[in-house]
Amino acid sequence: MKKNNRIGALVDEFTSNPCKLYDSKHFCDKFGIAKSSLSEDIKLVNEVFIDNGTGYIESTSGVGGGIRYVPGISDDNIKRIQDALCTKINDPSRILGGGFLYTSDIMFDGKLVDGMARVFAQKYYSFGADYVVTVETKGIPLAARTASLLNLPLVVIRREAMYSEGSTVSINYFSGSSDRIQKMSIAKRAVEPGSKALIIDDFMRGGGSIKGIVEILAEFDMDVIGVGIAIVASEPVKKRVSNYLSIVCVDEIDEEGRRISVRANDQLTSGTNLEI
Amino acid sequence: MKKNNRIGALVDEFTSNPCKLYDSKHFCDKFGIAKSSLSEDIKLVNEVFIDNGTGYIESTSGVGGGIRYVPGISDDNIKRIQDALCTKINDPSRILGGGFLYTSDIMFDGKLVDGMARVFAQKYYSFGADYVVTVETKGIPLAARTASLLNLPLVVIRREAMYSEGSTVSINYFSGSSDRIQKMSIAKRAVEPGSKALIIDDFMRGGGSIKGIVEILAEFDMDVIGVGIAIVASEPVKKRVSNYLSIVCVDEIDEEGRRISVRANDQLTSGTNLEI
Repeated sequence: MKKNNRIGALVDEFTSNPCKLYDSKHFCDKFGIAKSSLSEDIKLVNEVFIDNGTGYIESTSGVGGGIRYVPGISDDNIKRIQDALCTKINDPSRILGGGFLYTSDIMFDGKLVDGMARVFAQKYYSFGADYVVTVETKGIPLAARTASLLNLPLVVIRREAMYSEGSTVSINYFSGSSDRIQKMSIAKRAVEPGSKALIIDDFMRGGGSIKGIVEILAEFDMDVIGVGIAIVASEPVKKRVSNYLSIVCVDEIDEEGRRISVRANDQLTSGTNLEI
Repeated sequence: MKKNNRIGALVDEFTSNPCKLYDSKHFCDKFGIAKSSLSEDIKLVNEVFIDNGTGYIESTSGVGGGIRYVPGISDDNIKRIQDALCTKINDPSRILGGGFLYTSDIMFDGKLVDGMARVFAQKYYSFGADYVVTVETKGIPLAARTASLLNLPLVVIRREAMYSEGSTVSINYFSGSSDRIQKMSIAKRAVEPGSKALIIDDFMRGGGSIKGIVEILAEFDMDVIGVGIAIVASEPVKKRVSNYLSIVCVDEIDEEGRRISVRANDQLTSGTNLEI
């Protein structure tokens, strides 16, 4: 196989299997090439990902080492995704009253979801999560894509204990936005006790349901290593969770004036160390 | 930019944007190359996808024409995905009683979901769907991935009309497996009346909920061009929908003997024209 074809085949393989660890022997055998030639190929593939702003190749040596494509997103592409989100959200027909916005089309748009998932994958890759966890329903595509990019299993917490989930653990939590007690439920066999979770969700106002997720995971002695949220409302300023990363912030929904104030979370592209 | 790098960059761009139509001018400008050189590059990239069994490049000329990566999956990889599914499903601890199986981990496994989504994308690419539609919850990752691969918006039908969905249309339908009337609800602004839908779901027994989806879409004069289901129960033989494509079939769940009979749907790889 010619070098051109090998480069193409490697990029195809890596992008189809993000964060999967490959033994270099795998590719040497597949292409019938020496390790030195593979190293040159991998160097070039790494350049391609870096030039495209889509990630990089991580090579580690020794036992348990190998080659892995770590997906990412450039600052320019983060800004593009944030701009696209702000433009979409800034549409008065989304205002539903009571501080609610219609956002299903945004959370079900594959390109926007992929961009946001890349932000979370890039940020949390090195945090060592074992699962990506969300609560149904609107955040599932975003959480599923983040999980795929990180090569981690997805866990979906249900609002009601379903028969098809087998034995479950349920909690009640206080939801500020609906001003009432709500329930969530997780299948006992969905998670390994003592493991680590990355929480992903579509929207946060006071943080009640994120805090609910943290609490239900604590029932399994699970630690939360990070929280990624697509859209965060600026009010209330005081959230029930402190460590989260948002893509965009909604400052105000003016129902009478039919106006939505939404802005990019500049921390994502400011180059400063995020306080997470 | 050297040819090697261009090939890598093209594969990365195409796999990140499946089914997106590109003007060839886009790449000529980006790489600073003539149309003839781009044609050679595209030919090579097409070979890469075909050799890897991950799809092909479709080139169309004239007004509205361009270059597009159509994702696919080889028969060998379909068999591999089916085998992996059968092995996973064939685990007696999944038996929940009443003919239910625990399958959340399977439907939330990114690699399995990607493989199944590729089967559906390959099969239904030419059918001209405008949306991929599912009903919450377990089929959402599969439907979302299928939608991404086909570059289509996802629509998620809810079990309950949610306030955050705005005005909704709801129907009641008969679910054979739960032996009762159930409800589903769709946001009015989620779909364009008169458009075409591809339905994707995780599991089907009698087909009651798929028929419910067909009915709720009919309220918007929407046609269903296909139905893709991950796991279909062989019983009852008579389903409430006729045109569907399954990945694997569960023939029997023997609760007492703690045994599950599951097999690949051989039609997917038999090369015969599927009756869809």
